[in-house]
Amino acid sequence: MPTEVSALCDWFGIDLPLFAFSHCRDVVAAVTNAGGFGVLGASSHTPQELEQELTWIDEQVHGRPYGVDIVVPHSLADGRSISRDELARQVPDAHKQFVRELLAERGVPAGPEELFVLDRVPDAATGEALLDVSFRHPIGLIANALGVPPPFMIERAKAAGVPVAALVGAKEHAVKQVQAGVDLLIAQGSEAGGHVGEVSTLVLVPEVIAAIRPIREVPVLAAGGIVTGRQMAAAVALGAAGAWTGSVWLTTEESETAPHTVRKLLAATSRDTVRSRSRTGKPCRQLRSGWTEAWDAADGPEALPMPLQSVLARRALARIDRLAETGNLGAQDLATYFVGQGVGLLNASRPVREVVREMAEDFLNAAERVRRSVAG
Amino acid sequence: MPTEVSALCDWFGIDLPLFAFSHCRDVVAAVTNAGGFGVLGASSHTPQELEQELTWIDEQVHGRPYGVDIVVPHSLADGRSISRDELARQVPDAHKQFVRELLAERGVPAGPEELFVLDRVPDAATGEALLDVSFRHPIGLIANALGVPPPFMIERAKAAGVPVAALVGAKEHAVKQVQAGVDLLIAQGSEAGGHVGEVSTLVLVPEVIAAIRPIREVPVLAAGGIVTGRQMAAAVALGAAGAWTGSVWLTTEESETAPHTVRKLLAATSRDTVRSRSRTGKPCRQLRSGWTEAWDAADGPEALPMPLQSVLARRALARIDRLAETGNLGAQDLATYFVGQGVGLLNASRPVREVVREMAEDFLNAAERVRRSVAG
Repeated sequence: MPTEVSALCDWFGIDLPLFAFSHCRDVVAAVTNAGGFGVLGASSHTPQELEQELTWIDEQVHGRPYGVDIVVPHSLADGRSISRDELARQVPDAHKQFVRELLAERGVPAGPEELFVLDRVPDAATGEALLDVSFRHPIGLIANALGVPPPFMIERAKAAGVPVAALVGAKEHAVKQVQAGVDLLIAQGSEAGGHVGEVSTLVLVPEVIAAIRPIREVPVLAAGGIVTGRQMAAAVALGAAGAWTGSVWLTTEESETAPHTVRKLLAATSRDTVRSRSRTGKPCRQLRSGWTEAWDAADGPEALPMPLQSVLARRALARIDRLAETGNLGAQDLATYFVGQGVGLLNASRPVREVVREMAEDFLNAAERVRRSVAG
Repeated sequence: MPTEVSALCDWFGIDLPLFAFSHCRDVVAAVTNAGGFGVLGASSHTPQELEQELTWIDEQVHGRPYGVDIVVPHSLADGRSISRDELARQVPDAHKQFVRELLAERGVPAGPEELFVLDRVPDAATGEALLDVSFRHPIGLIANALGVPPPFMIERAKAAGVPVAALVGAKEHAVKQVQAGVDLLIAQGSEAGGHVGEVSTLVLVPEVIAAIRPIREVPVLAAGGIVTGRQMAAAVALGAAGAWTGSVWLTTEESETAPHTVRKLLAATSRDTVRSRSRTGKPCRQLRSGWTEAWDAADGPEALPMPLQSVLARRALARIDRLAETGNLGAQDLATYFVGQGVGLLNASRPVREVVREMAEDFLNAAERVRRSVAG
C-alpha cells in the first residue's frame, strides 16, 4: 500500500518529499535537479520577468518538476486599479515622518528618490498575465501566495492538469481551501518566515489533517521551522506527506540573498525572529531588527493595513539593505529579512545540492531512530 | 544498540516514553499505572499536603515509578522572607483598582475576603521542606519548576540516586542546566501551557540537542503542544528520548479541573490560547479570556514583575473560577487556565488509561508511517 509520502513523490515525480520555496531561480532549479521540488516565488515579478525566469529554469531542469507561487486577486472585479500616487496619498504624514526620522536617527541618508511609493501596484490583470505565462511552461504546481485561489485560477489549473496548492495557518482556512478545490495544502506553523498565524507546526499539521478529513482527502505538507531532515521525518510522523521549506535556502551559495543579510541570518539564533506587522501590515515573521523594534515599541505607531504599510516600508527597507552592504552601521541594525525560527539551525553557507543530500540523509536517520524506538 | 527511547524507558522503568505533569494525584497515579511516568506538580503545596499526596500515590502505584515537580529557591541565602502584607503593599493602588473595576464591570462581586494577598509566600525553608518530604518517598524523578536547580538540590538528589530534571525554553538555558548537573532536560516549546519562551517545539528540540552535545550527553524530552502519539513520534524523530505532557491530562475524567474549565478547554481551538504576563508577571500560555484581553489591551496596565502580578491575580482568578461554576456569565468570560495550543486537539473527556492507550497506539501507527515512507 502506498504511503502518503510515496503517493506524493509519485504524483510530483520527485525522489524526496521536499518542496523548496525561493525567489531565486538558481535555488529552484538546483533543488529540482537534486531530487526535490523547487517553487519560484514570483508574486512581485512582472509577466515579462516571469517568462524570462521560467525559460531559464526550463533550460536547467530538463523536464524535471518545478512550480510557481504567485498572488492572484480573488476576482477580476476586485481589479479596480488604484494608482501608485493615490496609495501614497493614503499614508498619513505622521507615519512618513516616523520613517524619515528613524532613518535619520540611525544615519541612513534618505537619498534622492521618492521613498513612499510602491514600484508596482498589484492588480488582477497582472495576476492573470502571470497565470498565462505560468501555464505556457511545463509547471508541475501552482500556488496562490495569499488566501483562497479564485475559481478561474482553479479552473485553468484543472484544465491544464496542474495541481493547485495553498498555504494555511489555521484549520478554518484549510477547510475553506479544500472546499474551494485546492489539490495540496501547506499547513504553515507560526514559526515560519513571512505571513504566519499563531499556531505552531507541531499542533497545526495534525489539526488541519483532522479538520479536512470529513471533506476530501487532500495531501498536506508541513511548513514552518523545517530546515533539517529530522524535522521532515517529524512532519511525516504528524501525518504530513512532505515538507515545504523556505528559510533554509536563503543562506545557500546559489541564493541571491545579499551578503550582509546572509551574515545576519547565519549569526541569528531562533530567538532573533519576530512576528511583526511592520513590513506589510499583516503579521510576518522576520529578523528582529532596529526597524521591527521601532514599530513594535509600546510608543511606536500602529502599523497600517495592507498594502499601505508596504508603501511605507518597501523602498525604505530596500535603501536600508543597499546601505547595509556598504558598511553603514545604522542600516545594518535596521535591516531585516523574512525568515523563520529555523534560522537558529543555519550556521554555514553551502551549495543547494549538499543541503538536499544532508536533509535526505538526516531524514533517513531520523526514520531509523523512530523505527528502532518501537522495535521493542 | 539501545535507542535514546529504550534507554530512557529502561532508566525510568516505563513502557512508554510519556511523562505526564499534573497537579492532580489521581492523574499522576493513573498515568504511572498505565505504563507512563506521572509527575506531581507540587510547587504550591505545603510540606504536609505533599506528604499526604505522596503517601496516597505510593498506595496506588505499588512501586511503579513517579516523580515530583517543585520550586526550590536557588540558595538558602535567598530566603530573606518577605511578609504577605509587605508584598501586598508593593502592588500599586492603580493596579488594584484596575482589577476591582474589571470584576465590577463584568458583574463579579468582590466578596468579603481580602482580594490582593498571596495565601502563601514561597520561601527557601518551604522549598527545603518539600525536598525533605519528596526524598522520604520512592520518587523516580525530581524536577525544579523554574530556573536552574540549586546545588544543594542536585547534591541531595545524587545522594538519593534520584535523577534531576529541568525545563528549558531556549538553548542558552539548556547549556546552563547541563553545566549545573541536571540529568534530564525538558525542551519546552512556545506552544506549551504555562511559562514558555518564544521558540516552537519543532525548532527548539533539535536546537537544544545540538547545543548540549559538546558538554554532556543528557536525554531530552520534548514538551509543548504534545497531546497525541503522532506528536510523540515526531518528538522522537527530532532526536528527543520521549515526551513531557501537561494539557492533555486536564480534561481527563480523573483530573480535578473544575467542570466549567473543562467545558471551556474542550470547546477551545488551538487559536484560543495566548502568551500573556497577566497571571504571574512572566509570559505564560493560557486560555485567552476577558482577563487576558483586558491586561493585554493596548491601553491596559503593564503587568507587574513576579511575584507581584500573582498578588493581583491569584485570589481574583480563584474567585472568578468559583463564580464561573455558579453560572455567572461575566466570571465565565474572565476565567482562564494554563494550557498549551494542543488544547485544539482535545475534544472529549476520557479516562487517563484510555488516553495513554490511544497515545501508545497512535505512536506506533505514526512510527509505522515513518518507516514505510522510507521503505522505498
